[in-house]
Amino acid sequence: MSAAAPRVAMVGAGQLARMTHQAAIALGVELTVLAESPDAPAVRAGARWRAGAADDPAALAALLADHDVVTFDHEHAPADVLRSLAGSAGRIRPAPAAAELAQDKLHARRTLARLGFPVPRFASARTQADVAAFARHAGWPVVLKARRGGYDGRGVVVARDPDEAGLALRTFGTEACAEAHVPIATELAVLVARRPSGELAVYPVVETIQRDGMCRELVAPARIDAGLATRATDLALELAERIGAEGLLAVELFRRPDDALVVNELALRPHNTGHWTIEGAGTSQFEQHLRAVLDWPLGTTALRAPAAATVNVVGLDERDVAVALPAALAAPGAHVHLYGKAPRAGRKLGHVTALAATPDAALTTARAAASRLEQG
Amino acid sequence: MSAAAPRVAMVGAGQLARMTHQAAIALGVELTVLAESPDAPAVRAGARWRAGAADDPAALAALLADHDVVTFDHEHAPADVLRSLAGSAGRIRPAPAAAELAQDKLHARRTLARLGFPVPRFASARTQADVAAFARHAGWPVVLKARRGGYDGRGVVVARDPDEAGLALRTFGTEACAEAHVPIATELAVLVARRPSGELAVYPVVETIQRDGMCRELVAPARIDAGLATRATDLALELAERIGAEGLLAVELFRRPDDALVVNELALRPHNTGHWTIEGAGTSQFEQHLRAVLDWPLGTTALRAPAAATVNVVGLDERDVAVALPAALAAPGAHVHLYGKAPRAGRKLGHVTALAATPDAALTTARAAASRLEQG
Repeated sequence: MSAAAPRVAMVGAGQLARMTHQAAIALGVELTVLAESPDAPAVRAGARWRAGAADDPAALAALLADHDVVTFDHEHAPADVLRSLAGSAGRIRPAPAAAELAQDKLHARRTLARLGFPVPRFASARTQADVAAFARHAGWPVVLKARRGGYDGRGVVVARDPDEAGLALRTFGTEACAEAHVPIATELAVLVARRPSGELAVYPVVETIQRDGMCRELVAPARIDAGLATRATDLALELAERIGAEGLLAVELFRRPDDALVVNELALRPHNTGHWTIEGAGTSQFEQHLRAVLDWPLGTTALRAPAAATVNVVGLDERDVAVALPAALAAPGAHVHLYGKAPRAGRKLGHVTALAATPDAALTTARAAASRLEQG
Repeated sequence: MSAAAPRVAMVGAGQLARMTHQAAIALGVELTVLAESPDAPAVRAGARWRAGAADDPAALAALLADHDVVTFDHEHAPADVLRSLAGSAGRIRPAPAAAELAQDKLHARRTLARLGFPVPRFASARTQADVAAFARHAGWPVVLKARRGGYDGRGVVVARDPDEAGLALRTFGTEACAEAHVPIATELAVLVARRPSGELAVYPVVETIQRDGMCRELVAPARIDAGLATRATDLALELAERIGAEGLLAVELFRRPDDALVVNELALRPHNTGHWTIEGAGTSQFEQHLRAVLDWPLGTTALRAPAAATVNVVGLDERDVAVALPAALAAPGAHVHLYGKAPRAGRKLGHVTALAATPDAALTTARAAASRLEQG
């Protein structure tokens, strides 16, 4: 195409890359994804692709060689590999140092604690004895997280006693971050976009409903008071600045019963808790991520309706969710997104967003359509 | 992918097919486009494609052989060729008889007149004398339209006298439809979706602003009174039923100074006057077209904001509109869609939509961004 069309590479080709490809089409941005298989959701959607693994320095160097910017749809490109791509660091967005905060849970806890952000009490744990020692101060249960590699509830165990802790550590096969169990009133998430040149944009705080460690449902805006929403927003904006995020930063937060906020997880990329923005916000998170990594002006983040809800479509077994698509589309106002993945129990296969006058009405519509898809 | 994922073929690979591809990704629909070149906008966006011309019976037969439905992003697949694909007619949507109404302007006028829809006085004209004879009753100027093949103002001439009429006929090189010149207060368009099984959905009436025979700007909803909007809507719904539209039907209307409505053009596909629906309506016209041709439940057509405006980005010369994309994105609330086309004077290269509290505010934003893109 034209010389001016920027070339963006995305490491990873899952549903986030698939939806980023949709956004790239509108902007005329040439997106290339790094995929391990032609069956990857983004490749199935027609994104240009190269075969390669996210931890392969040669594959990453090749992407950098002929793209303006390299970004990510996951955290599996190791920060040390990214750092080794000397001289190109400015075009890897987020930068390796920031990306590492989403890769290494212990490093993230240490960094956030040092910067003064609220985190649970935590410690490194390699052995059952380490966990037991931590629990003497923090109490049981202890939340154990594999230091690297976990997602969607994998690599996270709530251990009630030393035996469960020992089993979890053996399962992880790696160092863990042991955390005090935080009593949770609500789980919240805040999505911020930041350009390398500094501009910030923040989406309304959302409320997430987790099941089996996976975000299953989401309501925007969160049903919390304005003061708490402001605190959550300010925290996320400050965090994006302090860590030098480039592109999107999703901050998952616990709201304790006393309304104190605790940072749970970070992601520096488009995020499951931002899917509602495709229909529900002035700018979708996928377009926003592209704008941000290209250092282009950010788009408006305002809600387009009083409320939005997103419900994930998660495989119950190997039934094909597309069978029930016409039935799901019969739910008025249901916006269905399928990811083109082979069905499997526990796998995120799509999501449904609905906009409505109230969160409950939006949830009802989205749940109805998602449930039809899941039941096939 | 899965056995259940429906396979849709679209004849044509321009910007309408490009945006249909974006919609197909969300639904998990496998879209294949018939393109004459890998540079076609839909192919550049990653749609599966086959090389072939829209008037090639073999290419069309091959698409029918392995797709559930064949549909169109233009009118250039001749109805007689489509009719010749015997036995497959039910899966060509719209059906050849309906498609012909958008291909053959004289046939469309005759059909609509016979069905009792309001059309200008018209006649077949092959010679200057035919036009002069027509003008003795209808008066000058006479609007001459090439019977087939015109678009975006090409193939339409407003002839003020017999000499201009003769020149136009020679330029067309084909039979023309001569029409009485209709005094126009406003140009309107109504977009209807119809499923083969009969369900109808109609979008709010929009107001179009033409320049050089091309729709340049659009406001939704049209700034007309409710009674007129109802008349326009009812007319379009009745037309969709009477002609057996399958998929989308765009009805372009003239509103005369006395508020009478006259049918101008028909298109049986996604249409330039429906681009605002991507952000502005509950269901984009592209998703709606896919739903309709697949005979799936239609989506809500309600506006998502008090007003929406779309401004087309038309090439002034060979400057690359992508150069000014960051500047255009700085207009808050501007939704930019570029088509990935080589720039050329008079060519539609993209569009900008804005939502706002009033039509004027939406137009102001969309114009600002479109103008930046056009000026490079």
